Amino acid sequence: MSANISQAACVVGVDFGTLSGRAVVVRVADGAELGGAVHDYADAVIERALPVTGETLPPDWALQNPADWRAVLSTAVPAAVAEAGVDPAQIVGIGTDFTSCTVLPVLSDGTPLCELPESAGRPHAWPKLWKHHAAQPQADRITALAHERAEKWIKRYGGRISSEWQFAKALQVLEEDPDTYRRTERWIEAADWIVWQLTGRETRNACTAGYKGIHQDGGYPSADYLAALHPGFADFAATRLAHPLSPLGSRVGTLTAEAARRTGLPEGIAVAAGNIDAHVTAPAARAVENGRLLAIMGTSTCHVVSSAVLAEVPGICGVVDGGITAGAYGYEAGQSAVGDIFAWWTRMTGRDHDELAAGSAAPVGSHGLVALDWTGGNRSVLVDHHLSGVIAGMTLATRPEEVYRALMEATAYGTRVIVEAFEAAGVPVEEFVVAGGLKRNAALMQIYADVLRRPVSIAASDQAPALGAAIHAAVAAGAYRDVPEAAAVMGRVVTAAYAPDPARARVYDLLYAEYRELHDHFAARGGASSAVLHRLRRLRNDALGSEGGL
Amino acid sequence: MSANISQAACVVGVDFGTLSGRAVVVRVADGAELGGAVHDYADAVIERALPVTGETLPPDWALQNPADWRAVLSTAVPAAVAEAGVDPAQIVGIGTDFTSCTVLPVLSDGTPLCELPESAGRPHAWPKLWKHHAAQPQADRITALAHERAEKWIKRYGGRISSEWQFAKALQVLEEDPDTYRRTERWIEAADWIVWQLTGRETRNACTAGYKGIHQDGGYPSADYLAALHPGFADFAATRLAHPLSPLGSRVGTLTAEAARRTGLPEGIAVAAGNIDAHVTAPAARAVENGRLLAIMGTSTCHVVSSAVLAEVPGICGVVDGGITAGAYGYEAGQSAVGDIFAWWTRMTGRDHDELAAGSAAPVGSHGLVALDWTGGNRSVLVDHHLSGVIAGMTLATRPEEVYRALMEATAYGTRVIVEAFEAAGVPVEEFVVAGGLKRNAALMQIYADVLRRPVSIAASDQAPALGAAIHAAVAAGAYRDVPEAAAVMGRVVTAAYAPDPARARVYDLLYAEYRELHDHFAARGGASSAVLHRLRRLRNDALGSEGGL
Repeated sequence: MSANISQAACVVGVDFGTLSGRAVVVRVADGAELGGAVHDYADAVIERALPVTGETLPPDWALQNPADWRAVLSTAVPAAVAEAGVDPAQIVGIGTDFTSCTVLPVLSDGTPLCELPESAGRPHAWPKLWKHHAAQPQADRITALAHERAEKWIKRYGGRISSEWQFAKALQVLEEDPDTYRRTERWIEAADWIVWQLTGRETRNACTAGYKGIHQDGGYPSADYLAALHPGFADFAATRLAHPLSPLGSRVGTLTAEAARRTGLPEGIAVAAGNIDAHVTAPAARAVENGRLLAIMGTSTCHVVSSAVLAEVPGICGVVDGGITAGAYGYEAGQSAVGDIFAWWTRMTGRDHDELAAGSAAPVGSHGLVALDWTGGNRSVLVDHHLSGVIAGMTLATRPEEVYRALMEATAYGTRVIVEAFEAAGVPVEEFVVAGGLKRNAALMQIYADVLRRPVSIAASDQAPALGAAIHAAVAAGAYRDVPEAAAVMGRVVTAAYAPDPARARVYDLLYAEYRELHDHFAARGGASSAVLHRLRRLRNDALGSEGGL
Repeated sequence: MSANISQAACVVGVDFGTLSGRAVVVRVADGAELGGAVHDYADAVIERALPVTGETLPPDWALQNPADWRAVLSTAVPAAVAEAGVDPAQIVGIGTDFTSCTVLPVLSDGTPLCELPESAGRPHAWPKLWKHHAAQPQADRITALAHERAEKWIKRYGGRISSEWQFAKALQVLEEDPDTYRRTERWIEAADWIVWQLTGRETRNACTAGYKGIHQDGGYPSADYLAALHPGFADFAATRLAHPLSPLGSRVGTLTAEAARRTGLPEGIAVAAGNIDAHVTAPAARAVENGRLLAIMGTSTCHVVSSAVLAEVPGICGVVDGGITAGAYGYEAGQSAVGDIFAWWTRMTGRDHDELAAGSAAPVGSHGLVALDWTGGNRSVLVDHHLSGVIAGMTLATRPEEVYRALMEATAYGTRVIVEAFEAAGVPVEEFVVAGGLKRNAALMQIYADVLRRPVSIAASDQAPALGAAIHAAVAAGAYRDVPEAAAVMGRVVTAAYAPDPARARVYDLLYAEYRELHDHFAARGGASSAVLHRLRRLRNDALGSEGGL
């Protein structure tokens, strides 16, 4: 730690989630979490109707209210400082992370369009939450045109641009509400907007710009390409996005007087560049070294890993220079549903997780089952939300806890497919580190160790994203040279908490081969693979009278 | 009806099931069921240890005690007559049916070996119940040798001889307990043994001899073939089986004085040839005409249909001249588990059938699911007990009742595969008639009508096998010229109780195509099909430390 920083110095990390924001106060010298507080968003996820005006929303929409984010600064931050029992004068910096791609149209002074009286009743003026899925047609065209024109950047995203990302969402605004698009002076990630609120300055962080904004090799997609999507879109990047990028961990400004009043923190302290909740977790779990793959496992799983190598890995979400740690290529992949699948099975069987965990002690393979972990679609490596779940091998003696275990194993096989995709592309994966709620499921962690044939390390903090944001704040405040140095002191991990058992791993190799066969068969990729799951989805939609192809 | 028979004349039908025997008293003139009674077997299914001696049994064994069968005659028959309120003197005949292949070693006077003091402690001296599955190695050799020698009869059994049948069970006795085999003077179906108890005469009925005894074209497998299986087996058919066959519905003798004392019925009344419980149901449901396929639907389903055509139908259980009705070729096929699959899903979900039936009203295809009905293996047309269940298409929104419906549909698709196999081989199926407990499930019956695109008729009697046995008794007593004539008067069916709905049937055609794709993919038949289900079974058995290959 820098000699200029006091032993009592603290930083604040603020994690903006889907339903709430959480602040923690962390001691710079050792990463101790001294206090924390949570603020639940009043409007949470806006899916049916706009606040105040009551304008109804079409299906697949998901918005948020910027007022809820400001309220986290004014309630959770001072509450965390109070709980920590520290003098606010000890706080030397603040860092934030956000869900992503959560993105909003603003004026050039940062005012959200939805806060202008003339725009409050227009759905497209509101921030689109990461899980707003109504821009699929735009995303499909963005992807198809990129392949058609052989845009170099498309392979950096596993060959597909998501409907959740910046360009798809912005193009939807242009096409469905041109007036709002015209009023949009800047188009910005909430991760950068919140930093704007703290510093009074517009910034763009390397992480969201790279993963969600198609910023590659120093620039956004070309005006030519954008014009081919829609003539009115040609200048989108030049007029509404363009801004120098801030590296992760950098100090992008200082806390304004107004923000100091709002948070109760000292004016002028360091404010770190914005970040994504998954990626910011890496330093909290000391998973910043190349080859340490961090899985944030909850309802879904996000995988992030850094590497010295720039490679094209088919089916991953993205690779970004400095996307996790400045100076390394950061890779992201994901599984659409993990904890969500286990919760689904508790609903199906009317049994709780503890009852269903009873099957964990049986010998590997004794249930005779293999499942595909596609009950919520497949994010990596097939990138196909229209796939669905498969369970094979049931007999009349099969019990609910055996299927539960097969589903746990299926998610581990799905992770192994991702790990193998990285390694096949030349990106080494040496260690597997887990953060997120599922890290507490010991049976699941042992299955991952056995299936992956790798030790599984466990992030020690239960507030790892907020801790990660605090680590970035400590670097921004000059307490450490860089994020890896800060992570080594402030991050906490139980290394190799679960070791692979060779006998179990041998049987899992055989079961994984069966998973792989089913995976490739049901992948709907043409050739010998079957599109039966796509056809079932279409039959379902036809029967329900829903629209939109698959 | 013959003019010699009084309007008050009655017959008794006795149905020997797996756990109990049931007697009904039926009026000859109109088939009215006047009374009935059930007797539960004291020893039920003997699976763990022999009665009295306590000799323990290996896995997969299933025996019964002949004393339980005799007790049905002495308790259920008089109780049924008393309940009917008829004078025993009105009874003009008795008919029986039995589970099959339930088979026992006896002396030449019909005494079961297990009733000899010197044999009572030898498991192989006891009757082997139909579901005794310990003769699989013998069955495999019987099948393999038949193909090797191109025995003409093997194709009559869909290419495979079951471990449940006479020759496999007898060969197991010879190989595992030669002393008991040596003491075996006659090897006889319980269906014929019970008739022996009533008439004092050994008989062999055309039905069990054909379906379970490999009796084809007037004879059993040759001594040459049997010698190649085992030298000591060469004279098995000639010494222990050979006997003229009695056609179904024929009078094979009259009630002896002793049997009259035991049953309370008049001495000298007609006794009909033995029969199998499934096949005897056909006249009770008026399903004796060619092309009327009768499905006896309960825990499993047995399909029987008569035809003027002798054809080789791949994957069916058997075709027997006069096997259902004298003068026609009788075909049998089956599904290993039907009601058993639905009951399994109630256990999985902790919900009862009524709760799960809630999904029946949703539009066809709206669950987006397709399942394979192999949770209990596949009897027809794949004849493979080592296959297992598959469910595809689950999303996080999938509900228990949707899977339940997909499982109901899967059994209907499995039946359609069988119907199509018959028709492809030139055996017409014009009507679909259902007997057995599942006929009361209206949602299931409608699914079958829609999937099969055929009207579904419903057997009216709830004791259809016993009624069928009574119909055979009426023919044996001379009241009708033949079984079809008696069935037309005494059998009862609700014709076309369920009509196919064209709109639903169109969607089911699409879903059936998906089922068919999964069916062929998972069939483990070589070529492009996958053996994943076999491999999972082997992994399971390895993990559990069990033996015996698959």
